[in-house]
Amino acid sequence: MKSRSGPRYELRPRIRVLRGETIVLGPGKADLLQAIAETQELRAAARRLGMSYMRAWTLLRTMNRAFGRPLVETHRGGPTHGVARLTPTGQRALRLYRQMERASVRACAAAWRRLESLLPG
Amino acid sequence: MKSRSGPRYELRPRIRVLRGETIVLGPGKADLLQAIAETQELRAAARRLGMSYMRAWTLLRTMNRAFGRPLVETHRGGPTHGVARLTPTGQRALRLYRQMERASVRACAAAWRRLESLLPG
Repeated sequence: MKSRSGPRYELRPRIRVLRGETIVLGPGKADLLQAIAETQELRAAARRLGMSYMRAWTLLRTMNRAFGRPLVETHRGGPTHGVARLTPTGQRALRLYRQMERASVRACAAAWRRLESLLPG
Repeated sequence: MKSRSGPRYELRPRIRVLRGETIVLGPGKADLLQAIAETQELRAAARRLGMSYMRAWTLLRTMNRAFGRPLVETHRGGPTHGVARLTPTGQRALRLYRQMERASVRACAAAWRRLESLLPG
């Protein structure tokens, strides 16, 4: 949420779903899911986020294991080699995560205006 | 927010107030303000959070500069040497920060229940 008076201060809520110390879903993993949905390719998604292909695979593996089923379908051979798509579970997880982010920003608005008024303009 | 069915999954919203790349107020700084309010001593507050005294000073300096006025009053000499207290601005900033955290958790509850239902029980 940008300040009304300019881009000086920004409120950034970051939501994490944890299981013990493992981040099941957080800002980085949500961005990866979204980039996969948009590029339909794991390599392109990783590149867009400035992360290595190996790192993207590791994040995906963590999510798939935590959810007990794949969030992303990947094709490693044949004519669809390289294609990656969110599964229905992946789509749902990403949608709910973005809902939580938006809800969090909205819920903070009143206190954030008051906090911002304490900061130099 | 702990899962209703046990402590397996946890939703952890972390709120950050940024000015450019500087974290004006975030989880670590809020915890420091709270520890100072509770211990009335910067050294004790730092120890409680497992951070060095120097680190605590650095966090305080960042906050005081960002707010343009002190959030904590410290006494470095005389009979009150070592005593640290939140200023009215510090108290207000901490209170508003905790309000945002609670509001964020509440606002996420509905989507979080649905997301949690996608995770293995």
